[in-house]
Amino acid sequence: SIGDDAAAVKATPGLLTVLTSDMLIENVHFKLNLISPSQLGYKAMVANISDVAAVAGIPRYGLISLGIKPYTKVEFLENLYQGILKAAGEYRCNIIGGDTTKSPSQLIISVAVTGEVEPDLLMRRNGARPGDLILVTGQLGASAAGLSLLLNPEIEISNGQSLKEAHLMPRARVKEARIAAKFGATAMEDISDGLASEIHHICEQSGVGVRIFSASIPIAEGVSEVAEISGQKVLQFVLSGGEDYELVITAPPGRAEEIAKRVFDETGIPISLVGEVVNRKEGVFLVDEAGKTCELEMLGYEHFR
Amino acid sequence: SIGDDAAAVKATPGLLTVLTSDMLIENVHFKLNLISPSQLGYKAMVANISDVAAVAGIPRYGLISLGIKPYTKVEFLENLYQGILKAAGEYRCNIIGGDTTKSPSQLIISVAVTGEVEPDLLMRRNGARPGDLILVTGQLGASAAGLSLLLNPEIEISNGQSLKEAHLMPRARVKEARIAAKFGATAMEDISDGLASEIHHICEQSGVGVRIFSASIPIAEGVSEVAEISGQKVLQFVLSGGEDYELVITAPPGRAEEIAKRVFDETGIPISLVGEVVNRKEGVFLVDEAGKTCELEMLGYEHFR
Repeated sequence: SIGDDAAAVKATPGLLTVLTSDMLIENVHFKLNLISPSQLGYKAMVANISDVAAVAGIPRYGLISLGIKPYTKVEFLENLYQGILKAAGEYRCNIIGGDTTKSPSQLIISVAVTGEVEPDLLMRRNGARPGDLILVTGQLGASAAGLSLLLNPEIEISNGQSLKEAHLMPRARVKEARIAAKFGATAMEDISDGLASEIHHICEQSGVGVRIFSASIPIAEGVSEVAEISGQKVLQFVLSGGEDYELVITAPPGRAEEIAKRVFDETGIPISLVGEVVNRKEGVFLVDEAGKTCELEMLGYEHFR
Repeated sequence: SIGDDAAAVKATPGLLTVLTSDMLIENVHFKLNLISPSQLGYKAMVANISDVAAVAGIPRYGLISLGIKPYTKVEFLENLYQGILKAAGEYRCNIIGGDTTKSPSQLIISVAVTGEVEPDLLMRRNGARPGDLILVTGQLGASAAGLSLLLNPEIEISNGQSLKEAHLMPRARVKEARIAAKFGATAMEDISDGLASEIHHICEQSGVGVRIFSASIPIAEGVSEVAEISGQKVLQFVLSGGEDYELVITAPPGRAEEIAKRVFDETGIPISLVGEVVNRKEGVFLVDEAGKTCELEMLGYEHFR
């Protein structure tokens, strides 16, 4: 029932309703010369679904509001919707409404997604405790490195296509998040703005400090090569490169192992141990291979600066 | 819990969840020289709450996504939020999240609102049946006439201030809608795009025709005066002037009277009988004072054309 009015859906008894929204604006969050309309629609949905995953929710319903530029072709909108529906289908998120309007100069995609979660599985950022281990799903840096490749087409590397795909059509870790929640995670967040920034959120809201071991951060294949060729630091991609949509999870030692094992067994996604939670007064630090520490800078991902 | 991640709320057992979203873009839906930031925030919320009212829902939660132009002052944003919170407070709709981002050239306000409704009270546009009467709450045309006054400050009329207020700070008919649903309404819609357009939606989705009696349409005080001075037709304001956020309701004859009486008794809002539902093959017609009929044109409201 797409239209002006509201859609009505049935909540599952006993579950909490999860609500999230995100707005993507042309030339701020995406450039239409770098991403196809179908990829853009897909990514807009995944970004929201990832926010539902971050609290261990199951995606349910989506509302899509579009601001459309003059002279936009019908084919463009069809492809955009196709991408939205592809992601919606993969994550079983029903598109039930929204709003379409004119936008004078930028394409705008505003998505609201609902999900559901068992009250005892709801994950927040505020449950990390000193002694917990810090886990990361998958590999980091792929999206930022992929964007670098899209912006600098002269750079050619063997794994380039998969890095570009990571940027253009990311995945949300819905199943992985639920397994982590079921097996004892204490805090969780999806990595949309870069690991450093998400770690800081958890530290602030949990009132803790952390030690992140830089050598343990899982770096996607090809990211170091892109960093080297483009004269950037690989840690920049990994710590401040956003839109990987992997999860950062804290859990007590015994639990952490079980989460890692179960996530890998059930989804094939590897989990890396990247650090430990410490007391707040010990600060938020990065430890390098030589054991030297430096403050973990909170550089959020800024899309097209 | 405003932030990137999702908020979790408890659904009321037995009720349906209502979902709606709306995007307002500067210079398409509003002009910042005509509306204050606080009024704009208020109106953005009311527009969404009115969509919840249209299905007889009770507003519950709101997500606000803002796209903010460079050099926007903090004071502007504070006033915008103040208006959002004012409407949220009046309609008991809790703002629980959203997203704030940069927008290169237009202020963008994207609101998603949830509500709840008893399954047997859920109102749709598809329940109107031949023989039903057509009711309208309040008066129409005030918002469009108010906009005319704002655009043409040289026009001065005695009731001008209240017309401008109707445009800048409209009300949503949440209570009225619920009374109508409880006492036998068969179809309902909020008048956001003009009566003609909303009537057509009901006709299409219910598979019926209508006779609207133009002399019975409740016209807000001062609208005729604005029409006369500005050389426009009063029916233009009333049928195609949007953003009145009144309700159009269909109900069988005995029920219609009871709805009118109960709405007025409980809320003080008058209800007018404006026409009747007929068979689809009889078409969608406007009947003038002399009994002459003409097709009800579907002219939606186009904001700043």
